[in-house]
Amino acid sequence: MASIGFVGLGRMGGNMVARIKRDSDHEVVAFDFDKAAVKKAVEHGAIGASSLADLVKKLPAPRLVWIMVPAGDPTQQTIDKLEKLLEKGDTIIDGGNSKWTDDKARAAALKPSGISYVDVGTSGGVWGLEVGYCMMVGGPKTAVKRLSPILDVLAPKPDEEHGPGWQHMGPVGAGHYVKMVHNGIEYGLMQAYAEGFDLFDKSEYDLDNAKIAHLWMQGSVVRSWLCELAARAFEQEGNDLASLDGFTADSGEGRWTLEDAMDKDVPTPVITASLHARFYSRGNGDFTHRMLSALRAQFGGHATVKAAKK
Amino acid sequence: MASIGFVGLGRMGGNMVARIKRDSDHEVVAFDFDKAAVKKAVEHGAIGASSLADLVKKLPAPRLVWIMVPAGDPTQQTIDKLEKLLEKGDTIIDGGNSKWTDDKARAAALKPSGISYVDVGTSGGVWGLEVGYCMMVGGPKTAVKRLSPILDVLAPKPDEEHGPGWQHMGPVGAGHYVKMVHNGIEYGLMQAYAEGFDLFDKSEYDLDNAKIAHLWMQGSVVRSWLCELAARAFEQEGNDLASLDGFTADSGEGRWTLEDAMDKDVPTPVITASLHARFYSRGNGDFTHRMLSALRAQFGGHATVKAAKK
Amino acid sequence: MASIGFVGLGRMGGNMVARIKRDSDHEVVAFDFDKAAVKKAVEHGAIGASSLADLVKKLPAPRLVWIMVPAGDPTQQTIDKLEKLLEKGDTIIDGGNSKWTDDKARAAALKPSGISYVDVGTSGGVWGLEVGYCMMVGGPKTAVKRLSPILDVLAPKPDEEHGPGWQHMGPVGAGHYVKMVHNGIEYGLMQAYAEGFDLFDKSEYDLDNAKIAHLWMQGSVVRSWLCELAARAFEQEGNDLASLDGFTADSGEGRWTLEDAMDKDVPTPVITASLHARFYSRGNGDFTHRMLSALRAQFGGHATVKAAKK
Amino acid sequence: MASIGFVGLGRMGGNMVARIKRDSDHEVVAFDFDKAAVKKAVEHGAIGASSLADLVKKLPAPRLVWIMVPAGDPTQQTIDKLEKLLEKGDTIIDGGNSKWTDDKARAAALKPSGISYVDVGTSGGVWGLEVGYCMMVGGPKTAVKRLSPILDVLAPKPDEEHGPGWQHMGPVGAGHYVKMVHNGIEYGLMQAYAEGFDLFDKSEYDLDNAKIAHLWMQGSVVRSWLCELAARAFEQEGNDLASLDGFTADSGEGRWTLEDAMDKDVPTPVITASLHARFYSRGNGDFTHRMLSALRAQFGGHATVKAAKK
Repeated sequence: MASIGFVGLGRMGGNMVARIKRDSDHEVVAFDFDKAAVKKAVEHGAIGASSLADLVKKLPAPRLVWIMVPAGDPTQQTIDKLEKLLEKGDTIIDGGNSKWTDDKARAAALKPSGISYVDVGTSGGVWGLEVGYCMMVGGPKTAVKRLSPILDVLAPKPDEEHGPGWQHMGPVGAGHYVKMVHNGIEYGLMQAYAEGFDLFDKSEYDLDNAKIAHLWMQGSVVRSWLCELAARAFEQEGNDLASLDGFTADSGEGRWTLEDAMDKDVPTPVITASLHARFYSRGNGDFTHRMLSALRAQFGGHATVKAAKK
Repeated sequence: MASIGFVGLGRMGGNMVARIKRDSDHEVVAFDFDKAAVKKAVEHGAIGASSLADLVKKLPAPRLVWIMVPAGDPTQQTIDKLEKLLEKGDTIIDGGNSKWTDDKARAAALKPSGISYVDVGTSGGVWGLEVGYCMMVGGPKTAVKRLSPILDVLAPKPDEEHGPGWQHMGPVGAGHYVKMVHNGIEYGLMQAYAEGFDLFDKSEYDLDNAKIAHLWMQGSVVRSWLCELAARAFEQEGNDLASLDGFTADSGEGRWTLEDAMDKDVPTPVITASLHARFYSRGNGDFTHRMLSALRAQFGGHATVKAAKK
Repeated sequence: MASIGFVGLGRMGGNMVARIKRDSDHEVVAFDFDKAAVKKAVEHGAIGASSLADLVKKLPAPRLVWIMVPAGDPTQQTIDKLEKLLEKGDTIIDGGNSKWTDDKARAAALKPSGISYVDVGTSGGVWGLEVGYCMMVGGPKTAVKRLSPILDVLAPKPDEEHGPGWQHMGPVGAGHYVKMVHNGIEYGLMQAYAEGFDLFDKSEYDLDNAKIAHLWMQGSVVRSWLCELAARAFEQEGNDLASLDGFTADSGEGRWTLEDAMDKDVPTPVITASLHARFYSRGNGDFTHRMLSALRAQFGGHATVKAAKK
Repeated sequence: MASIGFVGLGRMGGNMVARIKRDSDHEVVAFDFDKAAVKKAVEHGAIGASSLADLVKKLPAPRLVWIMVPAGDPTQQTIDKLEKLLEKGDTIIDGGNSKWTDDKARAAALKPSGISYVDVGTSGGVWGLEVGYCMMVGGPKTAVKRLSPILDVLAPKPDEEHGPGWQHMGPVGAGHYVKMVHNGIEYGLMQAYAEGFDLFDKSEYDLDNAKIAHLWMQGSVVRSWLCELAARAFEQEGNDLASLDGFTADSGEGRWTLEDAMDKDVPTPVITASLHARFYSRGNGDFTHRMLSALRAQFGGHATVKAAKK
């Protein structure tokens, strides 16, 4: 039996606590600024904490504290506070979507105080509670080893063919690095399916997109979990997805992947086009388009439709 | 002094007739279904024709008939009618935006009747009247030679550094082929400028786009006629082009260029991206974007904003 | 029990015959110009045929004849020959990689003779023998219905969640159309993974690509059959795939997908970039690169390395 | 008459000194670690300096010191040294290819010492000596004003249509920012031409690339300075550029432009594709291609040619 503290009990963190308590006898001390979230964790069997200090106090040393809050400032601030509360030998785990270079800076900053830092890139989304979380882990071996009982229960069960559902990728940053590229690939996969189904939407044939997505799950080269989700999406939202808004956000990993690719001089046309497609989905090419239109009017005398007054 | 018939007196054909009559003593017989256009050509010094048959009758054999009507059906129908009216030794010139493979089919079809076919790719837009038309010519040498006095007056004056303003590119189709690729390049150039100025539009600096475009005309690597037109566009439409509609059409050459590139296994990422940008400018990626949004909602539980009812 | 003729006993056709005979009591009459292939089919339980005429003779009317030869001329020639041998009520099935517009032309050409035409897009590659072939079917309902016992055994077993392993997509051409877009998507998926693993290859971390691909099969968003194949490829070929040649061919569906997209004004940046990547893999951008180099030398005085003499 | 110090007398700096001395009576104090370069500047009329300290000593206060050394460390080190030698009221000008964000950091760092900082983005390459340098200037107004006599002689002569050959773009960084985007556009323009001429290279017509580039300078929409350079390149290197190496480097502005575009969520498919084309030109997609090949072999049984042993 291991003990771990959880900071951040939102959609991801809350489900993780629930999975640990459901499937193991590990002790979880849970904290969130949202008291309802703490209450829910307690209902799942966790020990509630009223503050970070309380959480630290309730954990046996050497402590494991898993942070599952939004990347950037919220994560950094949590780490800064924990640094003052924790002691030598304890370990901070960042399970969120942090940039791998931030991990390296944090681990270096924590070094003098003797606190270990482990970065965990987590994939699987809201399905993780049921399926398990696919986890890519970076950090020092001893800390990762101490964390492993928790990872074992969070991850999908080891598979005969594919092995365990979490892996130690290498030193600090390696977990979030692999997760970042994973997301870059994910963008490309999503856009590839989206382009194909867009053609079906415009086809002279009367095609049933959900039926096709299901069919492709049966032995085709493009079968995948995203294809499965596409089938569900068409079933739920209709063949033309007409009621949805196309605005597609991104959580940063795609652009970080492209920065990394530029640093390495690696051509990544597909991942880039996928990110650009998201920009277009937000109407971000509008100036560019007006300029095309303006140039065309200059040389061609092509009529440039004036935008309606708003 | 040469004689030529002109069929199609729109923006391009009308200006061409005006230029020929303004700058030479060549005889022009002009026809258009729009009588006002014929009247205007007559004011420029042309001989009006009331029908294709009348035009043919008024031209001395061997005849030159220049077609300047929209590509596709209108051009093909004009050729079909002229085939019946013309005789051996006459020449049909297609100065419009026809596909080069259509040229080859037409020349082959006209062969039995002894009518020559010349394809002329024309660049310069509405500025041609003043600057001259840059012309890429394909077809049999003898026919092109007979046409040359007309081409000489339509084209910009020969330049000491760059030579004549029209050139014989090769056998039939070669003129429109080179013009097609010219337009593919044009798409790429326009999109490159548009992306750059889009960044200026979002810049933390308060940049004056017209001023920058003018500055770049002064010795920079990116100086070009399109840059000059950009300066004019920003002067006329304002720094953010806010009153324009971004919807940007295309007249086919870009996609034909890409078909040709695929036939030849040549990677053309920039010309392709430029065409796709035009598709996006017309809102054509909307289904794709909705599908990205749908997939993201499936795995991430990311909120998918429903489109407002319209 | 149904009867079917198979023309073309290569990797795909041969395995299909084997699967039918292994898993059903359907009768298969098999022909190939390669006598060894026929012999092998006979060993699997098929009835050998010595010619197309012999194959037709050995089949009970109304006949089903499945063609599994290379797309283009070989398929067309087989159809032309069969047209003369078959009779009203018989059905030709094209299970190869034909272009969907060819299907439509063929079905129209066969109509007067009363021969039905069914197009089957087949995915799954060499794994089909074991897993079953994912089949997208186009053509008239009655012919497809008569073919269904054969499709049932060729396809993966119906799945509770995803349904049957083959589906009737619509009228003639619909099968190959959906398969074509499937392959376009497949190109995009492959390139997305390839770009991501390329970054791993250049990473400062010492990453084990096979291990990562296996890990991702455990609950990640990017789990897919191609990810599974990636794991196998890295296991077999090594972490850097150093012994492989990057030259990547294509069988046409990608470029047909892009032609279709251009016909429909649909932006398909990812599928296009994937095809271009294959062009680059064959060294096809070389002229372009030399021209970049030449232009750069012109304005920058940048040293242009001369190619070594070969 | 103004006075200015020049640090860095390579291809760009040396020509700038020559232009100033040829076309004005401004005083130039010139320094370079390469004594031959100093000697050459002296032959052009400059005053030689034996060290940075000597250069500073020989300039009247308030001093103008123009740095024209490679971006990055060499420029930073020069600034660091000059900071110790210069005094309040002096101005450092960085005329190289620095990143605009570095400018901002440097100006802030110099502020306490009262030294002004001006950034000048310079376009025109080796042609600047003859044509003049197109300059985009950022920095405080008073410093730019004091520099203006030098800029006037370095720039092309003011043009009636386009105005002066240099412009003050805004506060510090604005000059290099506009120059950075200029280069991003330049990449796109170059790649657009390169793709088009690549098609000519593979054409069924026997096309003369130099002739086409010259023709396009005569009134076509794609006329530009790069088109003019293309004509020169084909004349000098031959129609197929066969003797050139396609390896195309980049000096950073393209990738900085793309970073900036990602920061602003602006889709820049053409500039990105142009940078990727340069990566491909260096053989950088090789791993990606091997992986495509490997995946294809896994599912298709497609023959994967093994790379020849080296």
